[in-house]
Amino acid sequence: MPRRVDHDARRREIADAVLRLAATEGLESVSLRHVAAEAGISMGRVQHYFRTKDEMLVFAFEHQSSRHEERIVAKLTAAGRPPTARDVVRTVMVEILPTDEWSRASWLAGIAFFIRAMSDERMAAVVAAGGPGLIELFAERLGEADLPPGVDPRHEAVTLWALVDAQATAIVLGGRTPAEAVATVDYHLDRLFGG
Amino acid sequence: MPRRVDHDARRREIADAVLRLAATEGLESVSLRHVAAEAGISMGRVQHYFRTKDEMLVFAFEHQSSRHEERIVAKLTAAGRPPTARDVVRTVMVEILPTDEWSRASWLAGIAFFIRAMSDERMAAVVAAGGPGLIELFAERLGEADLPPGVDPRHEAVTLWALVDAQATAIVLGGRTPAEAVATVDYHLDRLFGG
Repeated sequence: MPRRVDHDARRREIADAVLRLAATEGLESVSLRHVAAEAGISMGRVQHYFRTKDEMLVFAFEHQSSRHEERIVAKLTAAGRPPTARDVVRTVMVEILPTDEWSRASWLAGIAFFIRAMSDERMAAVVAAGGPGLIELFAERLGEADLPPGVDPRHEAVTLWALVDAQATAIVLGGRTPAEAVATVDYHLDRLFGG
Repeated sequence: MPRRVDHDARRREIADAVLRLAATEGLESVSLRHVAAEAGISMGRVQHYFRTKDEMLVFAFEHQSSRHEERIVAKLTAAGRPPTARDVVRTVMVEILPTDEWSRASWLAGIAFFIRAMSDERMAAVVAAGGPGLIELFAERLGEADLPPGVDPRHEAVTLWALVDAQATAIVLGGRTPAEAVATVDYHLDRLFGG
């Protein structure tokens, strides 16, 4: 068992190195050598854990979601009460928006994956799956909530995802501030939940 | 005057060539030579109309908005009645979404500009200005409309822009269909205008 744990931990460390490089330099210049240097291990070790660069990139992209999930769970737990549907939705939305150094780096890494997806069909399929995944999560939570009549959980889930996706990119481009983005999220949630 | 007209018309033709190349190949490989070949003129003529590649790209980016405006005006005029605020907002939103060959190429060209903006501060400023411009247009129209109580035109304008921006990219990545995107727009406008 310890070997398996080490193996997974080492893969996650390498994935974190990929994400740091993606956020600062994009993915075009990311090589196994770069990643090895960033992770502080030999190229041979990187190749031991990932057979190809593509395999490493896909793992890093999925690992990024896990890191976000860990932070979301930590925030919801810290609140010290059972989270409502609105708590969960708001925490997920604010977590993804680039409001601190880590989430800003994470969104920039996401843009690097997106750029690669524009010229790489396999990566396009992986990146394109992110939106529907988030929409599904929102739709499930809204489906459980006591919403005003006439509200369609699925269309509303698309709107919540769009408010995160479009505003996150606007923040890193400098077109919106984190505070403006969160204010629009809170306005929207007030109306959605009939607050 | 004719010379001025010719000059502007030729600049627009060159800009259209830039947009076609941006949509199919991205901007990294776009050179003056490429653009000249695509526009069917000599490199010297391209240089006559644009002193630098940057100047040409910024003009092409702004020209793209003009082409969208022409199509929007044509659609609103074709309706044969004075457009309501909702008519204008919906027409703009559906126009930008990649629902036909031209608007798909236009959004792909926009992504190419966005990718360049990630490594080019001047282009970042130009690209970042696009969001606020659209939000302003929506906010003005919503401000004139008879909306239900409690509706904030500016936050709602951000949501309309986000629904266009995020869904347009999802369409070209294959994560949403044009019909799904338009259905969410119509659902949202029904609720916004109290339909």
